[in-house]
Amino acid sequence: MTASRFSADVYARRLQSAATAAADAGLAGLVITPGYDLRYLVGSRAQTFERLTALVLPAGGEPTVVVPRLELAALKESAVPELGLSVRDWVDGDDPYELVASVMGDALGGGTLKCAVTDSMPALHLLPLADVLGAVPVLATDVLRRLRMIKDPAEIDVLRKAGAAIDRVHARVPEFLVPGRTEADVAADIAEAIVSEGHSEVAFIIVGSGPHGADPHHECSDRELRVGDIVVVDIGGPYEPGYNSDCTRTYSIGEPDPDVARRYAVLQRAQRAAVDAVRPGVTAEQVDAAAREVLAAEGLAEAFVHRTGHGIGLSVHEEPYIVAGNDLSLEPGMAFSVEPGIYFPGQWGARIEDIVIVTDDGAEPVNNRPHELMVVPVPAS
Amino acid sequence: MTASRFSADVYARRLQSAATAAADAGLAGLVITPGYDLRYLVGSRAQTFERLTALVLPAGGEPTVVVPRLELAALKESAVPELGLSVRDWVDGDDPYELVASVMGDALGGGTLKCAVTDSMPALHLLPLADVLGAVPVLATDVLRRLRMIKDPAEIDVLRKAGAAIDRVHARVPEFLVPGRTEADVAADIAEAIVSEGHSEVAFIIVGSGPHGADPHHECSDRELRVGDIVVVDIGGPYEPGYNSDCTRTYSIGEPDPDVARRYAVLQRAQRAAVDAVRPGVTAEQVDAAAREVLAAEGLAEAFVHRTGHGIGLSVHEEPYIVAGNDLSLEPGMAFSVEPGIYFPGQWGARIEDIVIVTDDGAEPVNNRPHELMVVPVPAS
Repeated sequence: MTASRFSADVYARRLQSAATAAADAGLAGLVITPGYDLRYLVGSRAQTFERLTALVLPAGGEPTVVVPRLELAALKESAVPELGLSVRDWVDGDDPYELVASVMGDALGGGTLKCAVTDSMPALHLLPLADVLGAVPVLATDVLRRLRMIKDPAEIDVLRKAGAAIDRVHARVPEFLVPGRTEADVAADIAEAIVSEGHSEVAFIIVGSGPHGADPHHECSDRELRVGDIVVVDIGGPYEPGYNSDCTRTYSIGEPDPDVARRYAVLQRAQRAAVDAVRPGVTAEQVDAAAREVLAAEGLAEAFVHRTGHGIGLSVHEEPYIVAGNDLSLEPGMAFSVEPGIYFPGQWGARIEDIVIVTDDGAEPVNNRPHELMVVPVPAS
Repeated sequence: MTASRFSADVYARRLQSAATAAADAGLAGLVITPGYDLRYLVGSRAQTFERLTALVLPAGGEPTVVVPRLELAALKESAVPELGLSVRDWVDGDDPYELVASVMGDALGGGTLKCAVTDSMPALHLLPLADVLGAVPVLATDVLRRLRMIKDPAEIDVLRKAGAAIDRVHARVPEFLVPGRTEADVAADIAEAIVSEGHSEVAFIIVGSGPHGADPHHECSDRELRVGDIVVVDIGGPYEPGYNSDCTRTYSIGEPDPDVARRYAVLQRAQRAAVDAVRPGVTAEQVDAAAREVLAAEGLAEAFVHRTGHGIGLSVHEEPYIVAGNDLSLEPGMAFSVEPGIYFPGQWGARIEDIVIVTDDGAEPVNNRPHELMVVPVPAS
């Protein structure tokens, strides 16, 4: 394994599964331009825009990479050379869309079958490609959904490492939470810790203190921390080769008010109940309901204003979404957040979040810091 | 003017011109999702992906912004509130594509007229939008090309400031070019200088020393600088509200070889000839030819392996491209690079680049550092 991608056999398996899924869906094949799907399928981080780079995967067939000659070097980092994939380069003046169509060849069924394209393909390429193919493509999302949702052992290993890394950051958060410092000061320290604990970069940092904790979308501000504040800290970043961490813990600067402690304890039970509900065959909405029922029983239903979780992998937010209305059955290898929260506008908020991986008979959390409201001792004045 | 955008009247004029251009092109109107076109038209830096944000501009009509309720706050930074544009928000469960179609309304001509979309619109939104509109959209590139190519006084003012800022960085480059330091060391110093001299961030840094200077696509490496190296330094970044600088100068560490000096002098004449050729009515390819002819007359035609320049603005590379085959007539307000180079594989390379703005009777360069091969004195050993 290199730092930036998995070994080639991982991508070989994914390509074969994708080609089979495309055939099963009755499609001509897939056309995948730079983005998460391309990174998933061949480990390429190419970010070309003006000139077309595309993985062309005829249903049930062999993949070919179409690439501008100028960008050939960028493929070296991907698994394309090691896999020995066919590469067709093109130069200014060539028509790369005709090239895609010719690589698809017989798979197009003489124009009777549609191609599926990655959801990030820009109009700049999609519209001329549709012209040449003679049929407007469909989204590849359905074909790739199951493949990308079920993490393989290599992906699970990285998600575990990412979880352990963000746990180490949370272990250091109490030392950053000093009364008089601003949320932005704390966020700067956390940013440094996210990288020094092993992530390749910062993806997001929420430090919501006091009333700011009641807004789930708050990021950070110049508000100064005070004794008595409840502080929501929701942080994460990608860990090579690019799988994200995402973990929330809530802190109390000094001992919390008894009513805060009581309501937090209910939240903690709700989060535990949702994690305990996770196992193969349970639906995504049942996990959401498990958290919601505990809160509702204590009169806190209205305080929980968002879904219980989201899938995670190369993208911080991806399928499966743990939300009412999603009757998707969980399967081993799915990875998602379980993060109920309670929010009291103008006062305070709290959230507890772990990433869990569905196992054969339950859930494996990759975050393992204590779930209690973490009391940060106040310096004697 | 705020730091992040122009005053609202600038965007009001652009919106009106865009609506008129769409009508002139026989289109129903424009649908513009986040990207440079949205930033150009309403000063929005929104970067939403999953949920549709779009400026909907019926041909000859009034603009409406369609936005997820969750993302309403992001519009505050744009000119949308100050312009009093109509805003239609939507929540999960609504169909945002039907909303776009209903805002377009009669402009769709009952399905007889096409919409044009921004080139960065992702397939995720373009495919369901095409379904609802009943006609596959076309690219808005043609409609917006002239508008975005001809810079208005506010844009020209920022391009001048960006040019002056990168000139100040080049003034400091000689102190960074110390034998024994690596290209990467130099690039790190330049990165700091780009920001400290007023850019909001770094866009690109090329430090091509010795044989690396012969590769126009080289960025930087761990190669150590040596006495006698010729070093190509091509750098730039965005200056608020987001217009880019881009300037190349070539340096010699110690006195250059007489043959290098001779060939460099030809390049300098070629760059000067191309700048002198710029005026309204001249074509883009004539400017390219002006540089090429000087080099050809001295047997250096083969050493100049790329186009002479590219337009610049919110994007580092945009129209007009100064290249053979482009018969576009230059007009006052166009801004582009003039950057011939000579490359001798395995030996050395040189490039000279200024951004120029077409005036009523010629060209105004925004970069004004000396064009000579800049000799960096070698410390006595």
